[in-house]
Amino acid sequence: MDNKKEALDKHYEWNGKIEVISRVPINTREDLALAYTPGVAEACLAIEKEPDKAYDLTRKNNLVAVITNGTAVLGLGGIGPAAAMPVMEGKCILFKEFADVDAFPILIKAKDCDTIVQTIEQISGSFGGINLEDIAAPECFEVERRLKASLDIPVFHDDQHGTAIVVVAGLINALKLLNKTFETSKVVVNGAGSAGIAVAKHLLNFGVKNLILTDKSGILTSNTPNLNTEQQHMTTVTNLTNQHGDLTAALTDADIFVGVSAANILTSEMIQMMNPDPVVFAMANPVPEIMPDLAIEAGVGVIGTGRSDFPNQVNNVLAFPGVFKGALNVRASDINEAMKVAASNAIAALVSTDELKADYVIPDALDPRVCPAVTEAVKAAAIKSGVNRI
Amino acid sequence: MDNKKEALDKHYEWNGKIEVISRVPINTREDLALAYTPGVAEACLAIEKEPDKAYDLTRKNNLVAVITNGTAVLGLGGIGPAAAMPVMEGKCILFKEFADVDAFPILIKAKDCDTIVQTIEQISGSFGGINLEDIAAPECFEVERRLKASLDIPVFHDDQHGTAIVVVAGLINALKLLNKTFETSKVVVNGAGSAGIAVAKHLLNFGVKNLILTDKSGILTSNTPNLNTEQQHMTTVTNLTNQHGDLTAALTDADIFVGVSAANILTSEMIQMMNPDPVVFAMANPVPEIMPDLAIEAGVGVIGTGRSDFPNQVNNVLAFPGVFKGALNVRASDINEAMKVAASNAIAALVSTDELKADYVIPDALDPRVCPAVTEAVKAAAIKSGVNRI
Repeated sequence: MDNKKEALDKHYEWNGKIEVISRVPINTREDLALAYTPGVAEACLAIEKEPDKAYDLTRKNNLVAVITNGTAVLGLGGIGPAAAMPVMEGKCILFKEFADVDAFPILIKAKDCDTIVQTIEQISGSFGGINLEDIAAPECFEVERRLKASLDIPVFHDDQHGTAIVVVAGLINALKLLNKTFETSKVVVNGAGSAGIAVAKHLLNFGVKNLILTDKSGILTSNTPNLNTEQQHMTTVTNLTNQHGDLTAALTDADIFVGVSAANILTSEMIQMMNPDPVVFAMANPVPEIMPDLAIEAGVGVIGTGRSDFPNQVNNVLAFPGVFKGALNVRASDINEAMKVAASNAIAALVSTDELKADYVIPDALDPRVCPAVTEAVKAAAIKSGVNRI
Repeated sequence: MDNKKEALDKHYEWNGKIEVISRVPINTREDLALAYTPGVAEACLAIEKEPDKAYDLTRKNNLVAVITNGTAVLGLGGIGPAAAMPVMEGKCILFKEFADVDAFPILIKAKDCDTIVQTIEQISGSFGGINLEDIAAPECFEVERRLKASLDIPVFHDDQHGTAIVVVAGLINALKLLNKTFETSKVVVNGAGSAGIAVAKHLLNFGVKNLILTDKSGILTSNTPNLNTEQQHMTTVTNLTNQHGDLTAALTDADIFVGVSAANILTSEMIQMMNPDPVVFAMANPVPEIMPDLAIEAGVGVIGTGRSDFPNQVNNVLAFPGVFKGALNVRASDINEAMKVAASNAIAALVSTDELKADYVIPDALDPRVCPAVTEAVKAAAIKSGVNRI
């Protein structure tokens, strides 16, 4: 409770966590004449002649919009755009502190896809990349898909892909430690919202064959009622052996459980239905699907959570700063699957074979090696996949 | 030519003139927990409960959007949003350097009022004020009018009102020097675009009775063809004696000429048709309606231009930083006529009676007293007119 009060007090004291500063001194008439009229006209005309010069002559080269409509904020839900701003400002300062990327928070009022998409298309010109944040499912899927198609800069819904990148990075190392492989593991992802679906898709990138997506109604199949379009699509690429039943049924003989769902829904009994030394990433916040001590008692091989007070914290900050930095560095037009795969591998590779152990499969959120490693890997993947413009 | 090359080189060197920084240190887990999850949730919930807390807990209290669609940029015209960005960044750094106001540039693609208005409405929540910039007439009038009606934060088209505030500040002092008054002066404003119309309207705030608006087709009357809605409106509040004819006819017996039109269109002969000791503000850029030396030879009492290399520079930077700072300081819902009047008076008052002379009726653009004086005056006027929220 004291921490809560301190955090609120600090927010009052900070009076906003971001600030927009000048990179240029304005002390004399000459300074004014160079940075503003009349000198600025030369930069304008250069961009008019050659639009890509915007990357050289304006901050587009390092600027990301962090955009939300406040419909799915942290564990708080649909608190609306204004109330979401402290999170967006927080995200922006993480971009700056971890990657020296300039990020600016944009609040959008609308909840419907058409207006969200149109608004972002309209204002996208200021930016070198778009980070969608805390937009509810299923709208987040359509918004991202349409923007990726219409814009020539990267669009990345962090709640989906940031989470997926870091989860998979942790799983790469957990499987290495336990001598298992993605190809031969049975994986259950519980929670068929934006994060769960993105994790599932990213696992397919890594060769997982036996993948089951579950939610409150149990295993997702083509017969599950009330699925949104994205969930329907997922039933065609997961659960290929057509299993039915509840979470316990799904977990039988499973090797990996990834939870982006709700507190305490995973029991010791369920873990004991899984294959020996299972991997459990229980990321419900603030209370995980199972507490680490219970999971260890039940025999897990590796346990990870979303919390900083337990080992193996799955924290998006390991991914998004470097992912965008890498994309911006090569003026990428997209953040594609190859770049996300590269990011997961780069994060995983920072835990050396010597250091690898059950309570260290994911680097620390503040490990200064992470962002540069992710940046370089994403950059290389962008170039290899041809979405770079320099 | 060398200056042009230097300005372009500098823009390449700067690689963007703005930067978004963190006001909060992020070095430890504890820092993260306060500024981001889980602590940030407290700030979110406080705003959800009481929306005005956004001013205390986020940067809304000091943040202005500088928004353009690039349809009327400087003297360059409709070069488009991307090419307008160097000007917008320049404007943003002036906000920061002169008033310590954080300003962020937003580019909008659309040229139609509906889309521009909807886009700005959608994203307005991030900001404490909206500075419209370099949007072409007549769209700029409708866009501003509709946004002022729909938003609860100030909306200010600087090309209109910034110019008007500074022009009138200069005229206050010029008339004082020449022992004339607004009420008894005949004023000709040449150029019926956004700046000219705004200057004309603001002159009405100061009691001008005999006001004529002219453009390429001569004196604007209700019979002038092809007027836009705003120009039509102006014909009902100007030219009350129903004069007809060209610029020369308008200038006969005039006391003040304000030009926001084109190079060299004012001749010595025209000045000699005016009353003795006329005031001429020739603000076409970069070449004024008449060069100052010619105007002085022709007998002007005071000559001002838009250029920094002549005395009496009409520079918007005298107005907009303090106008927004004053509005933000009291969380104003609007920048109204009373606040604009206060700004003009405050700028004029910085030239003391002792200092006042023909080549010093407007303070220097870099005079550090200007922004604080405008801020205080605008703040007081906001409170007096009841648009303050603190």
